[in-house]
Amino acid sequence: MDDIKDMVKKAEAYLESAGKLTEECLEKYIPSEKEPPSTLHSAMRYALFTGGKRLRPALAQAAYEFFGGKPSESIYLAMCALEMLHTFSLIHDDLPCMDDDDFRRGKLTTHKVYGDATAVLTGDALCVFAFELIARTGNITVVKELAHSLGTQGMIGGQIVDIESEEKSVDLATVDYIHYHKTAALIEASLVIGGLLADAKEEDLKHIREFGKGIGLVFQIVDDILDIESSTEELGKDVGSDVKNGKATYPAVLGLEASKQKVKELYNKALADLEKLSGKNSETLRNITALIIARTH
Amino acid sequence: MDDIKDMVKKAEAYLESAGKLTEECLEKYIPSEKEPPSTLHSAMRYALFTGGKRLRPALAQAAYEFFGGKPSESIYLAMCALEMLHTFSLIHDDLPCMDDDDFRRGKLTTHKVYGDATAVLTGDALCVFAFELIARTGNITVVKELAHSLGTQGMIGGQIVDIESEEKSVDLATVDYIHYHKTAALIEASLVIGGLLADAKEEDLKHIREFGKGIGLVFQIVDDILDIESSTEELGKDVGSDVKNGKATYPAVLGLEASKQKVKELYNKALADLEKLSGKNSETLRNITALIIARTH
Repeated sequence: MDDIKDMVKKAEAYLESAGKLTEECLEKYIPSEKEPPSTLHSAMRYALFTGGKRLRPALAQAAYEFFGGKPSESIYLAMCALEMLHTFSLIHDDLPCMDDDDFRRGKLTTHKVYGDATAVLTGDALCVFAFELIARTGNITVVKELAHSLGTQGMIGGQIVDIESEEKSVDLATVDYIHYHKTAALIEASLVIGGLLADAKEEDLKHIREFGKGIGLVFQIVDDILDIESSTEELGKDVGSDVKNGKATYPAVLGLEASKQKVKELYNKALADLEKLSGKNSETLRNITALIIARTH
Repeated sequence: MDDIKDMVKKAEAYLESAGKLTEECLEKYIPSEKEPPSTLHSAMRYALFTGGKRLRPALAQAAYEFFGGKPSESIYLAMCALEMLHTFSLIHDDLPCMDDDDFRRGKLTTHKVYGDATAVLTGDALCVFAFELIARTGNITVVKELAHSLGTQGMIGGQIVDIESEEKSVDLATVDYIHYHKTAALIEASLVIGGLLADAKEEDLKHIREFGKGIGLVFQIVDDILDIESSTEELGKDVGSDVKNGKATYPAVLGLEASKQKVKELYNKALADLEKLSGKNSETLRNITALIIARTH
């Protein structure tokens, strides 16, 4: 347990540093609020600079470093693109016609501050700007990986099934589908993109992809558990909102204890996936994995 | 005038053929409605297969052919991506929180058939899928060109200023800004992408870009004029809706006659831009230009 605490502490420091770097780069890449169209640039910045965990940029950087990538513009571009795409999905998810959430990361959601029309366009703008940044890496395989992870076979596919499953009795296969697509797909892509930019071998990319799928799923199950167990203050968003919205969650289908057991199983599988990677030091990736599961402890 | 009629007829035939090709390719690329998530694939298809003019794919193909490009998968991918991105913008534009339009191309808009949440996600899915297709061309410059044409300095920038200008007294500079960004940017990108995929020279790309800017602007001015002069039946969408929504249009700022005069000026400028292109036969591009302006005759 002390061991886990130490790993979490190290992961937190890594995420803080990766987050700071991401924010510095976003500051540089996103046009100033003074530049027209001001409202859009202002709303993009509002949505991005709200103290998120910056998990996806951190995972991309950790994978990049694991495979021997040296500090470079291309990984910074990818880190920013990933955070922008995550934020794009949150803005649209929070809209009144979707989950209708007023708070996110302890602040009013974008549509509550800027109105629904601007929120739709802010999400759109973050999405296309992310592709402009990722294209600047010059790596076409990275562009393909990213686009695929977001589409109907990825994140957006998960979002629609999530909405369609509200207030319905769903089975484990459906919850798995939603979690893998809505959450795990972009987390998986973050790691694979880090690997691609560092010229990782095909075989290693396969293993890091498996690892990403697993920690993406466990991240969402932990989120489900926290939605039930935490206070609003701790989480910075409306707690119990999954229950309120009749969302398809792991605890709703399996119960709380079995969900926690699933977290443990996935944790062990993630560590085993890391073992398969050729050589090098996977400490940071192991630490981040510990941080993801430790949120429920 | 007979000359113009003949050009328009040829342009119509070209657009019909390019449209048919685009639809055949879309049919191939977009997953079947049977494949999950079915709702999303169904809505994407509903929005795409509504008999639009397919102007952007046709322009991309015409530019590609002008610069000597031979039939290839890469131009088909680009044609489909352009149509998907145009459709993405229409779906979001029509949402109740945006322009709140019930009809488009003579059919119910996507949110009227599938609901607002699905319409938001259908637009998002078309946007990211377009980037997946364009990435499959293998040409990173094309990805950059496309992303830039859509962002805050392009189409989405135009959409936000358009919304912010509703019910306000705006000047010509603002209407120009809206029209150039909201409409001309993607039309310009269509032509430039056709050129890029055919390995056109830098100098030629500059001229085709200028040509695209001009016909993009004239296309929108003609649309403004038609919104006042045509019947709903002819246009397939709510006519007079610009006036109803207090939209910033050319006729609203300059008056109808001066707007028509502007169309003539831009027509002549477009033809002059084509003259600057090195060698080859610009007949198709000239015919499409005639078709764009002839809509008001």
